[in-house]
Amino acid sequence: MIAPSLERDVPIGSLALDCGVTLPDVVQRVSIYGEPRADGSNMVLVNHALTGSSRVAEWWGEIVGEGKLFDPRTFAVAGINVLGSCYGSTGPATPAPGGRPYGATFPVVSVGDMVRAQRRALEILGLQRFAVVIGGSLGGMQAIEWAMQAPGAVGHVIAVGAYDHFSTMGIALNAVAREAIRVARTPQQGVELARKIAMLTYKSEALFAHRHGRKFDRKGGDPTKRTGDRFDIEGYLDHQGALFSTRMVPEAYLTITRAMDLFETRDRKLGFPAPRFTFAGISSDWLFLPEYVRAAAARFAAEGADSAYVELRSDHGHDAFLAEPEHLRGLLAPRLRDLYEAAATG
Amino acid sequence: MIAPSLERDVPIGSLALDCGVTLPDVVQRVSIYGEPRADGSNMVLVNHALTGSSRVAEWWGEIVGEGKLFDPRTFAVAGINVLGSCYGSTGPATPAPGGRPYGATFPVVSVGDMVRAQRRALEILGLQRFAVVIGGSLGGMQAIEWAMQAPGAVGHVIAVGAYDHFSTMGIALNAVAREAIRVARTPQQGVELARKIAMLTYKSEALFAHRHGRKFDRKGGDPTKRTGDRFDIEGYLDHQGALFSTRMVPEAYLTITRAMDLFETRDRKLGFPAPRFTFAGISSDWLFLPEYVRAAAARFAAEGADSAYVELRSDHGHDAFLAEPEHLRGLLAPRLRDLYEAAATG
Repeated sequence: MIAPSLERDVPIGSLALDCGVTLPDVVQRVSIYGEPRADGSNMVLVNHALTGSSRVAEWWGEIVGEGKLFDPRTFAVAGINVLGSCYGSTGPATPAPGGRPYGATFPVVSVGDMVRAQRRALEILGLQRFAVVIGGSLGGMQAIEWAMQAPGAVGHVIAVGAYDHFSTMGIALNAVAREAIRVARTPQQGVELARKIAMLTYKSEALFAHRHGRKFDRKGGDPTKRTGDRFDIEGYLDHQGALFSTRMVPEAYLTITRAMDLFETRDRKLGFPAPRFTFAGISSDWLFLPEYVRAAAARFAAEGADSAYVELRSDHGHDAFLAEPEHLRGLLAPRLRDLYEAAATG
Repeated sequence: MIAPSLERDVPIGSLALDCGVTLPDVVQRVSIYGEPRADGSNMVLVNHALTGSSRVAEWWGEIVGEGKLFDPRTFAVAGINVLGSCYGSTGPATPAPGGRPYGATFPVVSVGDMVRAQRRALEILGLQRFAVVIGGSLGGMQAIEWAMQAPGAVGHVIAVGAYDHFSTMGIALNAVAREAIRVARTPQQGVELARKIAMLTYKSEALFAHRHGRKFDRKGGDPTKRTGDRFDIEGYLDHQGALFSTRMVPEAYLTITRAMDLFETRDRKLGFPAPRFTFAGISSDWLFLPEYVRAAAARFAAEGADSAYVELRSDHGHDAFLAEPEHLRGLLAPRLRDLYEAAATG
């Protein structure tokens, strides 16, 4: 795995949020792989999903790396931890003006706020033009939001497993995950259960049936005999929940999922000149339905943009954007041919 | 709504469960609408789903009632509260031999155990032949189990939104609902959250988008401004959770969902003479996938039974078997024409 060539906590001052609150002393953690050209022609911004970080090569290695979709020998790839998260940028774990962490008092944040904070941090670093802004899931929402806020600053927006709003079922699923955090006896139990609920929405029956089926837990026990014993899928979920609770701040989870819920761009018109769009739906995704991804591509085409839909055919569910990166790379590379040619000669 | 013509708590003695435990003094709550004929030719058994009761006319009024699929002026329709539930039959709220309720010590129960208990109770009432055994969801599992245990005793098995086993995703969804009950600060909060998780698996995005969309809570508030405010879908879920927690014993929920998880008949051969089968899949059901329902119909056909698949085309998700009973009635009535003719002349 490659290391960032630059990593900085960029202070961007106070930020007026969509909710009406002004957040003071906002910081954005930025990681950059490769060397940006002055004209921005090789600059790629990768937006992360719910639980990601600015170190994009750590969680999307097939997309960012030598010989990958974006090779840092040619491209400069930036990642930024989103506002409200817990991996370096300002969020609920950050000390509030009184000195104690915001915790549950952290205000409502929107995807619009996240992108405004990113734009300011990147501008401070001298980066204002982007050949590509790309992301999956919440990262795709941010990429679309970039197109809405700064259409002329981005050459190509790529949204994977994401579309121009968030569904009612998505809001509902986030709501029950947040409720798990609120009603559990301990924050750890709450985050674990929230993660397990979310895991189910990221995967598919086809994948689970293949991997776990109806087998009993690999560590032993017989659920047909004793109430405490587990099926293998339950052991898998317990393991995933335990891993996650060590790396997620409960209030950050509440904040970021709410930002997803609030995402809605259908009441706004795209500005021109506009980026090119590529929307990638995932065939087995039931959290971000592929028909909605297709509809978003059609919407921006109808508004006059060069906007295409491609489909990642996968049994992995929503997680396919992370679980099948080679497949995704093969799907996206043809859409980047012009950029590759320009970069090679640039 | 019609009232039962007979309602009895039938003591069936002790029951040796599949898990190895013998449960003493088991009682089955039985409700019957209409008058059984001595030869059983007009006898219908309706099996209930996770949260149902023996009073089938209360929750499936389009299926059981005057002028409905099964008219009690012609048919005798029996309902039985399942073993492990909390509406009259023995379950976790029942006093154990020491006098205190079983609670979390209630043993693991299988769908096989449920059906064995039903068969014994009905035999005590003189009922051993059934023209039809029908149910949706867990009720459909019981109907299939009837075919496995007593193929010669049933004329026609109808399973709606159910198939011959339970999926890995189904086990996983039940597991997170049970975990909600275990980790919540209060049993009420736990049952409410479990219900909300389950509600999402019973419905569909299409239905939610139509009914709630992205509207804010009808009682007021603005989730874009304040962290405590809700979308309409969240208010709906809160309401459903609150309703449910007043009528469900937490340990009964744990017991019955586990029985669903354990359901697997693919390792058993159907006996002959076998019932006729009708499997009804629901097009938008993602808890009981229609392709699995179709496969179960094909399996029993391959084993030599008269087994057909029909599909309820609905946006209601799994709940369509309750939410679209008129539609279901229209789908099933043609499969019952012989029975209607026999009943009219019988």
